[in-house]
Amino acid sequence: MPKQQTKGLLLSKGAEIMHRRGFQDAGIQEVLEAASVPKGSFYYYFSSKEDFGLQVIDLFAEVMFQTLHSNMDVASQPVVEKIRGFFREMTDRAVENGYAGCPLGNLSQEMGDVNEVFRQKLNEIFSRLEQELARYLREAKAAGEIPDQVHPMQMAVLLVSSWEGALLRMKLTKDTVPFDIFERTVFNDLLMRT
Amino acid sequence: MPKQQTKGLLLSKGAEIMHRRGFQDAGIQEVLEAASVPKGSFYYYFSSKEDFGLQVIDLFAEVMFQTLHSNMDVASQPVVEKIRGFFREMTDRAVENGYAGCPLGNLSQEMGDVNEVFRQKLNEIFSRLEQELARYLREAKAAGEIPDQVHPMQMAVLLVSSWEGALLRMKLTKDTVPFDIFERTVFNDLLMRT
Repeated sequence: MPKQQTKGLLLSKGAEIMHRRGFQDAGIQEVLEAASVPKGSFYYYFSSKEDFGLQVIDLFAEVMFQTLHSNMDVASQPVVEKIRGFFREMTDRAVENGYAGCPLGNLSQEMGDVNEVFRQKLNEIFSRLEQELARYLREAKAAGEIPDQVHPMQMAVLLVSSWEGALLRMKLTKDTVPFDIFERTVFNDLLMRT
Repeated sequence: MPKQQTKGLLLSKGAEIMHRRGFQDAGIQEVLEAASVPKGSFYYYFSSKEDFGLQVIDLFAEVMFQTLHSNMDVASQPVVEKIRGFFREMTDRAVENGYAGCPLGNLSQEMGDVNEVFRQKLNEIFSRLEQELARYLREAKAAGEIPDQVHPMQMAVLLVSSWEGALLRMKLTKDTVPFDIFERTVFNDLLMRT
């Protein structure tokens, strides 16, 4: 298998394992076995377990931003409905994974206090998500879809952290009620109210 | 030291360690050393590490509900301001602990998929918090403090999960901006709007 392909396989198997169990508990041997890659070759692809973890985080972020952009590229829908579609699709994925939460949220919880490089990377990813959502909310405001008093950047921060909190709560309830309430309250009552 | 006092000391030292590092990474020997209790006596007080962890969770819950009730008992303030006071006090504590998040939220993240007994206990605690908040919000509604269209139980669920999400985000930002935005948006825009 070409080097890039093997590396991609290790990252995607690593993503599955890290989504379920976090970074510290994910074993290098386990990732190699899941990818059917010979033992001992890990350091041919990654300089350290940290390097591997950071690249898995890049992969999670890439998937998240692709999901955002594919939702936003849908024509003939109000901007706010596209944003709602993004959160729904991400939530459906967490449900399919057995209410495993958001992998980036899980890693924030696990690594935010433990590893400064992880903290900074995760913080940058969430900041970028907030900034992109704020830009879309400004478009929605310009189009008259949302009330004038909505502050796009603050609303973007609220959307991201409230959604992460709902996914966290769903790890306990094992149902979608926390997300349903987030969606109804934030989208219908805050964003769509007239 | 009397048995109950030693047990209480082990639980409070355990709470400090579990707030910072979670359950799985908290070592029994470390808790005993922090409490200056002789090695080997752990199983005199607790039947297992799980039993110990569940009792630490009870302690976290007790502190949280005490904080809620002490805020709600303040006379001569609107109910909504008392609820706001509760979230502020809990958040201040997370900040004092180096933005360590909410211990119960952290444990939900860590244990929600790992241990069914922990999941059920944590779920019951958050459900009770939501129910108590819903009761206060019904009082606020009866007193005409909040808009008629606010659904007390749904708003209680939103408050808890959005606040947990803000504390999670604060583990990355290491500032209070996510909480400030939660507070402003949810309390001013959703609850206090006229």
